[in-house]
Amino acid sequence: MQKSDNQVKYLKLMEHLKQEILLGRIKPGEQIPSENVLAETMSLSRHTVRKAISLLVNEGYLYTEHGRGTFCLDRSRKRNDSRNIGVITTYISEYIFPKVIQGIDSVLSSNGYSIMLKNTNNNTNKEAVCLEDVLQKNVEGLIIEPTKSALYSENMEFYEALDNHRIPYIFIHGFYQQLENKSHIILDDAKGMYSAVEYLTKLGHKKIVGIFKADDVQGVERHNGYAKAIADAGMSYNPDDVIWFHTEDRVVKPYNMVKRFLEENREVDAIACYNDQIAFRVYELLTGLGVKVPEDISLVGFDDSYFSANCPVKITTVRHPKEKLGEEAAEILLEMIKDNDYLKNPVQKVVIPELIIKESCIKR
Amino acid sequence: MQKSDNQVKYLKLMEHLKQEILLGRIKPGEQIPSENVLAETMSLSRHTVRKAISLLVNEGYLYTEHGRGTFCLDRSRKRNDSRNIGVITTYISEYIFPKVIQGIDSVLSSNGYSIMLKNTNNNTNKEAVCLEDVLQKNVEGLIIEPTKSALYSENMEFYEALDNHRIPYIFIHGFYQQLENKSHIILDDAKGMYSAVEYLTKLGHKKIVGIFKADDVQGVERHNGYAKAIADAGMSYNPDDVIWFHTEDRVVKPYNMVKRFLEENREVDAIACYNDQIAFRVYELLTGLGVKVPEDISLVGFDDSYFSANCPVKITTVRHPKEKLGEEAAEILLEMIKDNDYLKNPVQKVVIPELIIKESCIKR
Repeated sequence: MQKSDNQVKYLKLMEHLKQEILLGRIKPGEQIPSENVLAETMSLSRHTVRKAISLLVNEGYLYTEHGRGTFCLDRSRKRNDSRNIGVITTYISEYIFPKVIQGIDSVLSSNGYSIMLKNTNNNTNKEAVCLEDVLQKNVEGLIIEPTKSALYSENMEFYEALDNHRIPYIFIHGFYQQLENKSHIILDDAKGMYSAVEYLTKLGHKKIVGIFKADDVQGVERHNGYAKAIADAGMSYNPDDVIWFHTEDRVVKPYNMVKRFLEENREVDAIACYNDQIAFRVYELLTGLGVKVPEDISLVGFDDSYFSANCPVKITTVRHPKEKLGEEAAEILLEMIKDNDYLKNPVQKVVIPELIIKESCIKR
Repeated sequence: MQKSDNQVKYLKLMEHLKQEILLGRIKPGEQIPSENVLAETMSLSRHTVRKAISLLVNEGYLYTEHGRGTFCLDRSRKRNDSRNIGVITTYISEYIFPKVIQGIDSVLSSNGYSIMLKNTNNNTNKEAVCLEDVLQKNVEGLIIEPTKSALYSENMEFYEALDNHRIPYIFIHGFYQQLENKSHIILDDAKGMYSAVEYLTKLGHKKIVGIFKADDVQGVERHNGYAKAIADAGMSYNPDDVIWFHTEDRVVKPYNMVKRFLEENREVDAIACYNDQIAFRVYELLTGLGVKVPEDISLVGFDDSYFSANCPVKITTVRHPKEKLGEEAAEILLEMIKDNDYLKNPVQKVVIPELIIKESCIKR
């Protein structure tokens, strides 16, 4: 019993010290408290303290100078020629990101870099695990698709740690409001959706239902574009015409709501969807209910993905540059890595997407 | 001139020694020839030799013991607790692999591992670059989707190097005939296609066209299953009923050939396709030509992918376990990493896929 108790104690101390180092609270070259002081302040035996420190020396977090004490190792040199770039995505299998990664990979591999791939499943706690993991690896920089970017992020200490360790990072697709002064490359989602809804109003549609994702910045911005286009057409924005969904209810809510709108005999001229995936499923639902697209209801999507191309009625959509966006993110990051002043020179690029008119909308 | 000449010379010597170490021809702990001997045999100045060696010491490939000589560093300890796994794919954006990677990632990340992602674009030379890159990184093991696996691989020296460095690897989806005694996890592609074509023959189809990919093992095996099912039904196999395509002509050839068959008024009852992606495009082609699926021609695919699900007539297909296959590959690799005798105990798993009957075939 005694033994396993001590085991837990030294592992706990190790974890504590490692965390302090990873988060940059103990800085490279900084001396850590002596064994005596640690033993006393943490109420541990000197044996336990010695074991934890010797393991952290082995793992490359600390080094000991005989007669002087124990210090935090500067891992930056090892990191700085690792030729590894971390890529943190929300989903691996979702329909847009594989092509973005392909773009990232083509630029990085032709510059001799490798991708360290991490996946948050759009879960904030998993993002924390990914960031902590990456801080332990030798990466020279990071490309991050933020997790539930419309919400307040609780992972700020990890982003500060990246700055403390001078690991440059760039957000892609969206960014946290708390980090709006950091580098990012995003689509102008509001302008993209504006052009789609403006097109619908010009076709004479009056009742335009919007379906948007509530927990990422893209969803919020696309909704803003929708609302502005409605207002600019001299129509009044009605919150009841908007269907919001979250990551967790994405598989059922949008379709149940559209179905209910139809069952309630509400007037619907057109539906503007968060993306092509939603638009495709709405198409299937409408067709199954005997409602014709575009004769009865016009439909627009977003992203110009295979869902738009594979739909029996090709879906009018907004172009997402996919590979190109990944390439540009990688190029900007490589520049940041070379720039000693990257923290003072954030690169913020906004790509304006164009409307791609296909077959899913007609004049009213 | 003198200077840049010398620069090229020491870089060349560095590259040469690095290659010998990476390929395992110079082994950990092995002494390399003295500066004098290297200078003499390679016709270089001692200065050039010294510079190359000192840079390789800096990069962690060699170490020098004063008075004894220069030796090859054993990088295995650093590698063995890196918690990195290399994943080499043929395409990132193709329709099956993202889900397989998701399966791999879920097992690896819950075991504290990270993915180092590499992409060959199904090009043998790029596979060589990926393998050489991975040999320079600290990875504990590799999951590899082979590139053009039906062809003779010219990258054997890299696979031998993986063995020399005791980095376990497992092939997924296919394997090279030259490495058939190594670990792999694959689908029984022949049995999968057999069940699809047997189903077509039982529906009364006589003229069954097959479309197969020629340069990967899956294509060859699926063709074998097709041929056996035809023979077992008491019909005669006709090579003219088979359309072969290669990576390079995949976007045009299968469809041009089907079109030509129809223009020549050849009798076609059914078409068995290499995968759902091909089946979907064939469906589009047939529909465009006014040929009805399944009334005029029955159609089967392979992989049970979104192409089958998204087709207006859902395509009868063969199930690919995707995430599950990735999970199992990762689990096997983690066991191999723990097993000191993994080279003697290859794990070879074959998953038998089942037929999924949907809407694209009817009785003749």
